[in-house]
Amino acid sequence: MMRIDIITCVPSLLTSFFSHSILDRAYRKGYAEVVVHDLRDYSTHKHKQVDDYAFGGGAGMVLKIEPIAAVIRKLQSERSYDEIIYMTPDGARFDQPTANRLSLLKNIILLCGHYKGVDQRVRDLFITREISIGDYVLSGGEIPAAVVADSVIRLIPGVLNDETSALSDSFQDNLLAPPVYTRPAEFEGHKVPEILLSGHEAHIEAWRMEQSLLHTQKRRPDLLKDHNN
Amino acid sequence: MMRIDIITCVPSLLTSFFSHSILDRAYRKGYAEVVVHDLRDYSTHKHKQVDDYAFGGGAGMVLKIEPIAAVIRKLQSERSYDEIIYMTPDGARFDQPTANRLSLLKNIILLCGHYKGVDQRVRDLFITREISIGDYVLSGGEIPAAVVADSVIRLIPGVLNDETSALSDSFQDNLLAPPVYTRPAEFEGHKVPEILLSGHEAHIEAWRMEQSLLHTQKRRPDLLKDHNN
Repeated sequence: MMRIDIITCVPSLLTSFFSHSILDRAYRKGYAEVVVHDLRDYSTHKHKQVDDYAFGGGAGMVLKIEPIAAVIRKLQSERSYDEIIYMTPDGARFDQPTANRLSLLKNIILLCGHYKGVDQRVRDLFITREISIGDYVLSGGEIPAAVVADSVIRLIPGVLNDETSALSDSFQDNLLAPPVYTRPAEFEGHKVPEILLSGHEAHIEAWRMEQSLLHTQKRRPDLLKDHNN
Repeated sequence: MMRIDIITCVPSLLTSFFSHSILDRAYRKGYAEVVVHDLRDYSTHKHKQVDDYAFGGGAGMVLKIEPIAAVIRKLQSERSYDEIIYMTPDGARFDQPTANRLSLLKNIILLCGHYKGVDQRVRDLFITREISIGDYVLSGGEIPAAVVADSVIRLIPGVLNDETSALSDSFQDNLLAPPVYTRPAEFEGHKVPEILLSGHEAHIEAWRMEQSLLHTQKRRPDLLKDHNN
């Protein structure tokens, strides 16, 4: 079973997400486990403080090294970790190939920043990889950790009901997915493309590939360049 | 007050996130409101079904157009919307300039896909903008909607405690943020850079700018190219 440990100072942000997503199904089926750790449980301050002002001044609080070091070392004493990942907007851009690679690992720690981020010494001493989910700034690393956990765990064979489901997603072959339609065949005069109702599997497959290519060409020609290489 | 309506077939995924994040603070301060709508409430099926098999076959379910049309039209009858955004991996890449622009709007709808996505006719008839948070596939648009809501609402002046806090984030000036440190000044022999303890504001500012540039040059030279243009 794959194990993802998430370290955060706001565990409540993640609670309902993990108990209502495919991650819960993955756990019940025995494929993957996500464990959320509250950084405050590792604070030695009497008020459970885990952050402090930045040296040198400036707005925003910084997560302290001691509680982070304590939780990482406790986890490392229990099992060995393939990666200790810090979620940060200046990390390497997360993408589908990275999700594929991470889905093959056994134990991963995801450290969520909050406020201005973590003390730089945490990154220097403990972190093996830094990941950004995109070029934008969020209140903390909790949503990014949910992105990584969801995208990775759904790739583990057996987690989705039908294995072909993940393989036909956008990006798995550097192509965007073709348009999809479901009932009714006509909605206020707007009809489903006739070919999809034809029952002719080979023609439908060819139409979908053509639509994928056209759609990718229009929206993301950069992916097609990679595709041809 | 800004208003973001999120349409989803799994509202429970978002509940704890919105009640424990800065979005709750933004609401209590009167700056922004996020309202989550359960697509199932707009299903006319007796089992509250909102999805169906894809025409033409293949794995994965597709969200039906009728309940989505019903909830969008109900919302549009109550107020006018600046954007009706579909969260999808083949949308335009979300970034900080887009977050800045959206933070100036008044009413936004975010539609979350789930399973294989929504019936293409929803995109053709109702959607004004399609956004992707990155080149990876997730179980649904719920986490991406949380990304957009969080990144946009924290930019509204007054939501963060200190207005300079958001402005000094990575990407706001096409530079990655400099390293940050907090107490203790020494952790197991690892010291904070002396300049940050000097109390000399101008030197500290210069050091931070230099560190930002070096860090960006090393990790994201593409941002510097934009910066010089």
